[in-house]
Amino acid sequence: MKIISSIQNSYIKDLLKLQDKSRERKKKGLFLVEGQREISLVLKGNYEIDSILFVAEVFSKEKAILLNIPTSKYIEITKEVYQKLAYRDSTEGVIAVVKTKEFKLDNIEFNTPTPLILVLEGIEKPGNLGAMLRTADAAKLDAVFIANPKTDMFNPNIIRSSVGCLFTNQIAVGSSEDVSNFLKNKNIHIYSATLQNSNEYHKNDYTKPTAIAVGTEATGLTQIWRDVATQNINIPMQGEIDSMNVSVAAAILTFEAKRQREFKI
Amino acid sequence: MKIISSIQNSYIKDLLKLQDKSRERKKKGLFLVEGQREISLVLKGNYEIDSILFVAEVFSKEKAILLNIPTSKYIEITKEVYQKLAYRDSTEGVIAVVKTKEFKLDNIEFNTPTPLILVLEGIEKPGNLGAMLRTADAAKLDAVFIANPKTDMFNPNIIRSSVGCLFTNQIAVGSSEDVSNFLKNKNIHIYSATLQNSNEYHKNDYTKPTAIAVGTEATGLTQIWRDVATQNINIPMQGEIDSMNVSVAAAILTFEAKRQREFKI
Repeated sequence: MKIISSIQNSYIKDLLKLQDKSRERKKKGLFLVEGQREISLVLKGNYEIDSILFVAEVFSKEKAILLNIPTSKYIEITKEVYQKLAYRDSTEGVIAVVKTKEFKLDNIEFNTPTPLILVLEGIEKPGNLGAMLRTADAAKLDAVFIANPKTDMFNPNIIRSSVGCLFTNQIAVGSSEDVSNFLKNKNIHIYSATLQNSNEYHKNDYTKPTAIAVGTEATGLTQIWRDVATQNINIPMQGEIDSMNVSVAAAILTFEAKRQREFKI
Repeated sequence: MKIISSIQNSYIKDLLKLQDKSRERKKKGLFLVEGQREISLVLKGNYEIDSILFVAEVFSKEKAILLNIPTSKYIEITKEVYQKLAYRDSTEGVIAVVKTKEFKLDNIEFNTPTPLILVLEGIEKPGNLGAMLRTADAAKLDAVFIANPKTDMFNPNIIRSSVGCLFTNQIAVGSSEDVSNFLKNKNIHIYSATLQNSNEYHKNDYTKPTAIAVGTEATGLTQIWRDVATQNINIPMQGEIDSMNVSVAAAILTFEAKRQREFKI
C-alpha cells in the first residue's frame, strides 16, 4: 500500500486544487468527500470512488472494510497531509476522491405519480444550498432542481452544509427555462414563492404533482417562474422584517406540502 | 461636534473591546449595532442610545435626522476608524453604541390569552440563534425564551444573523428550570422537540397557549423539558439523515402553529 507523507507530492497538490477550484473539479471530473458519514452517503448515492486517503492512526482498517471498497484504492497519508487536504476541522482521518456526476434533467425518474419537488433558482450561498438539500432529504423529496446555478454542486461548502445530502437526493441542474419546461411537460403544478399576485402558502393543495420554487433573498425568483406558476405563494411576514432566510422559507413550504400529504412517501 | 480619526483613541479602543468580549459588554452595559436597518430596529425596541458614530462621507445628515437622536450624541469618525469597528463588511458608515437590556422573565407581558412562544435551550451557534430570532419576528411570536444560554445575547454575530430581530422580539433569558416554571405557572402548554415518547408535530393542537421548545442538534433538549412537556413532538425524518438544523426545525414547528392559528395575531 502506498504511503504519502509530503504535501509536495504531485497527487496531493492536484487534490488541493480540487478543493479550491470549480474549474479543476470539472476538468478532472473528481471531487473530495471528507468524513465517514459523508463517504457512506456518497456510496449509497452510487458514486464511483477513485481513491480513499486515510490516516492509519485515526482511521482503522475495520472501518475501512465496512466501506466495502477494494484495498487497491486505499492510500495511506500522514496527519500533516490530511490536515492540509481537510476542509472541515474534522479528525476522522479519511477523505474520498470521488468521480463527479452530471445532474441531467433527462436522468430524472419519479417512482410516484404525485412527485414533490423543490426548485432552487440562482442560490448564491453554498451554505443555503446545502441546508436545503438537508431539508429535502429529511422530507424525502422526489427531486431537487437547481435552476440557474451560481456554483458547481461539488463545492466543498455545499457538501459540508448538506451533511452529505448532496448524495442522497435526486438532483438535476439546468437553466430556469429548461427546468420549467421539464415541469410543464410533466404536468407538474408549480408554486412560486414570490410576493406579486400571490396567496398565502397554506391555502393551496400540494397533494397533486407539485414543484415549489424559491429564489434568492436579495432578488427573488426571475420572471420565468412567475409566468409559469400555477399559483404564486407567500409566507405571511407579520413582524418588522420583510424577508426570510431562503432555507427557512423552503423548509416551511416543503413541510406544509408534506403535512398535507400526511408524510406518505 | 467631535471627530475621532485615530484607532488609538481610548474611546475607540473601549468600543473594540465591546465587539470582542462578552465580559466587556456586561461590565460597561453597552454593545454596538451596525447598519441603518439594525439601528432603526434597536430604536423601535426602545433601547437607549449612548452615541452614534458616523462617517460623514457615507452617512448623510438627512438620514441622521430621520433617526431622531439628539445631535449631541453624534460622533464623527473617519473611514479608517469605521472599518476597524465594523463587524460586517458593510459600507453604511454608521454604528450605534447602545445600552444593554436585561432580558428578565419578570418583564414578560402577553397581549393575548393564547400566546405562542419559542423556547431555545442551550443553543451554541450564534448564527442559529439569530436565524431563529428572525423566524420569530416573521411569525410575530409573543416571546422567545433563551434557556440555559451559551452566549450573551449582544454577541455581534447574533445581532448580525438576526438582521436586527434581537430587538423586535420580546425576549427573556433564564435557566431551563426558571423558564419551565414560568410556563407552568401560566398554564402554557409545552411541546418539546425530542424523539422519546413523541408524536408527529402536526398531530397536536397549537391554538391554545403554547410554547415550543427546541435544543441543540448534538444533544437535544435536557430532561427537564421532557418531564415538563404537555407532549413531546418530532418532525418525521424520512431520508438518510437523522437530524435537522435546529433553526429549520424551529421554523417548521412555529409555522405549523401559525397555520393552525390562521396567522391571526
